[in-house]
Amino acid sequence: FESKLPNLGVSIFSQMSGLANQFSAINLSQGFPEFDAPELLKTQLNYYVQQGVNQYSPSSGVPRLQQQIANLVERKYAAKINAAEQVTVTSGATEALFVAIQTIVRPDDEVIVFDPAYDSYQPAIELAGGKSVHVALNAPNYTIDWQIVSQAITKNTRAIIVNTPHNPSSKILQPQDIKELKELVSAHNIFVISDEVYEHITFDGQQHLSMLRDEQLREKSFVISSFGKTFHSTGWKMGYCIAPTHLATEFRKIHQYVTFSSFTPAQHALADMLEQQGEHVDELSDFYQQKRDLLIKHLSDSRFNILPSQGTYFLLLDYSDVSDLNDVDFCHWLVEQAGVAAIPLSVFYKQPSNDKVIRLCFAKNDETLIEAAQILCQL
Amino acid sequence: FESKLPNLGVSIFSQMSGLANQFSAINLSQGFPEFDAPELLKTQLNYYVQQGVNQYSPSSGVPRLQQQIANLVERKYAAKINAAEQVTVTSGATEALFVAIQTIVRPDDEVIVFDPAYDSYQPAIELAGGKSVHVALNAPNYTIDWQIVSQAITKNTRAIIVNTPHNPSSKILQPQDIKELKELVSAHNIFVISDEVYEHITFDGQQHLSMLRDEQLREKSFVISSFGKTFHSTGWKMGYCIAPTHLATEFRKIHQYVTFSSFTPAQHALADMLEQQGEHVDELSDFYQQKRDLLIKHLSDSRFNILPSQGTYFLLLDYSDVSDLNDVDFCHWLVEQAGVAAIPLSVFYKQPSNDKVIRLCFAKNDETLIEAAQILCQL
Ligand SMILES: CSCCC(=O)C(=O)O
Ligand SMILES: CSCCC(=O)C(=O)O
Repeated sequence: FESKLPNLGVSIFSQMSGLANQFSAINLSQGFPEFDAPELLKTQLNYYVQQGVNQYSPSSGVPRLQQQIANLVERKYAAKINAAEQVTVTSGATEALFVAIQTIVRPDDEVIVFDPAYDSYQPAIELAGGKSVHVALNAPNYTIDWQIVSQAITKNTRAIIVNTPHNPSSKILQPQDIKELKELVSAHNIFVISDEVYEHITFDGQQHLSMLRDEQLREKSFVISSFGKTFHSTGWKMGYCIAPTHLATEFRKIHQYVTFSSFTPAQHALADMLEQQGEHVDELSDFYQQKRDLLIKHLSDSRFNILPSQGTYFLLLDYSDVSDLNDVDFCHWLVEQAGVAAIPLSVFYKQPSNDKVIRLCFAKNDETLIEAAQILCQL
Repeated sequence: FESKLPNLGVSIFSQMSGLANQFSAINLSQGFPEFDAPELLKTQLNYYVQQGVNQYSPSSGVPRLQQQIANLVERKYAAKINAAEQVTVTSGATEALFVAIQTIVRPDDEVIVFDPAYDSYQPAIELAGGKSVHVALNAPNYTIDWQIVSQAITKNTRAIIVNTPHNPSSKILQPQDIKELKELVSAHNIFVISDEVYEHITFDGQQHLSMLRDEQLREKSFVISSFGKTFHSTGWKMGYCIAPTHLATEFRKIHQYVTFSSFTPAQHALADMLEQQGEHVDELSDFYQQKRDLLIKHLSDSRFNILPSQGTYFLLLDYSDVSDLNDVDFCHWLVEQAGVAAIPLSVFYKQPSNDKVIRLCFAKNDETLIEAAQILCQL
């Protein structure tokens, strides 16, 4: 039996969460919050379940939720979109990413991906018969060299995947990046797949520059987000894709044969949540900035070199003063011997880097972060 | 922009449910129950949501649910399977079918499909770069001519998709079919994708012959089922795939990049349901047989020719004595003018048949079925 993904195994997130459980370590590896979804969301979910709203939703999503998503987009990004035609609700951002990639990538197409890259992009491209072309972000600040991107474009380039705020580096695209991206997209007629699942988590007053803010980019983009990150409910697997109508039509053709639809009562509950407590979204940046600052403060006596975090709920640590191990071995040692699970950064690279960097998730209770920091300070 | 699925539009189920809503028709088209999920399932869902079990489950599923599925399989089919290695929980049977197909179908592979066929098989095969090879079931009984299947096999044949009980024909594979299938599979070294989502809905004492019952077939099969059909909860999108370990490993590689995992609290609630009220499963056949018989009784004065239903919650009607329209036009007329939504059978064929047959879903309250039958009797 020949594997369709011969070079891939179990995802790093599953591996590390598995080890964290096995060794009863503090799990700062896989990105999920330790705090619970808002009460209203949980109450409303139960309300719809009890009301018997338990059958298929329309394949593109419950219309009320599509509308609430469009309203949020208008409020935050001043973009008017047609909810019924452009918003498709998916089973998490993972499905949205997968379907967007299947929608546009044909055999032998190339897709530009920035390394370090979220782990699902490349397999999704390969399953569509395409090829991922990897451009490494510039160390140590993980900035984009648009000159290099430009040189990576060929006649087969079909799309570019951007991710802002960026997992794992936490970096946010800047106005200059958007300008360069726009030029690239219009010069080469390529599509943008924009992974914006951390759109509501940006720090130090920085603005998230969604593709939806820009009329030209919007016309070429699949913008993907997730309620898991926004409403502390990663296990609900609710995401969505916003695209111009002609692309959304094609996206939906594929979505209907990948999952057809997602959990109906949760869609209604999310619509209520956005309608009644939309301000939750606006509080997220402050909430996570405090977490970030707490963790940084408690790591200040450690021998780790803390890299700046601009957004997401991840923090990168350079451990070159702590250990000579490569990052995969170091993470194994860390979870097994020290009792803290983290993600090695090299797994997000096509060409494994030699950087000695690990990723911590700080979407955790203060005590958890302090306890983890105390352990790390002893190394 | 070239479509990846140029010959496909919005699924027939979305179209017909849309029209049913628009014309306030009785919706016997898309297959979903009018009755609600069991109380215990709903209560337990809320319990886990309130307990804060709202983050990612393991990608293969919550272990308790995997185990309950394995127990059910052992009880019903006397098959011992390794829950942790072989059972993967998915976002509905649709995802399971899609992922199973992506797992084994490579570019230019051929997959044998029986027409009429559930609408998601062919696009999933095409998206994997493969080709669906269609063998029509024998009219009027929708039986399989294994001689023809045998002739359809080429050196590129990679798999065969079977579906029992069969949607839309309601037919159940017989012991002779299993025997022929076994011979075919071992002679040609092909895989079986077995869509068994209606496994618990068989009539007149007939047994469902799961691939899992047979040791040889089991080793070559992806067996797919769904809780939506079994627990009246199609909107929860919970399904699963059972495969031998080496195939499940590959299935999981892809699943983790398609959806990663499914709704966590529902997985726990389903585990409780199977553990505490497993007998629900055994009552389903009687429950639906009464529905079938009620609908048939109330249609007996109609000019429709009622085809026998062996399982599923679908009934086929031949309307050749009622109308000369083709089945798509007839279904449009029926929903718009008569107020009953049904599914035309020709859409399930690669080579549209001229049969004048429509599919009704009888997973509805008695009053709904009687009301629909009264309308149909007037035609
Ligand atoms: C789908 S599991 C991965 C969660 C996540 O987004 C991360 O840890 O980066
Ligand atoms: C996923 S919508 C289709 C439901 C169904 O199985 C059917 O109507 O055949």
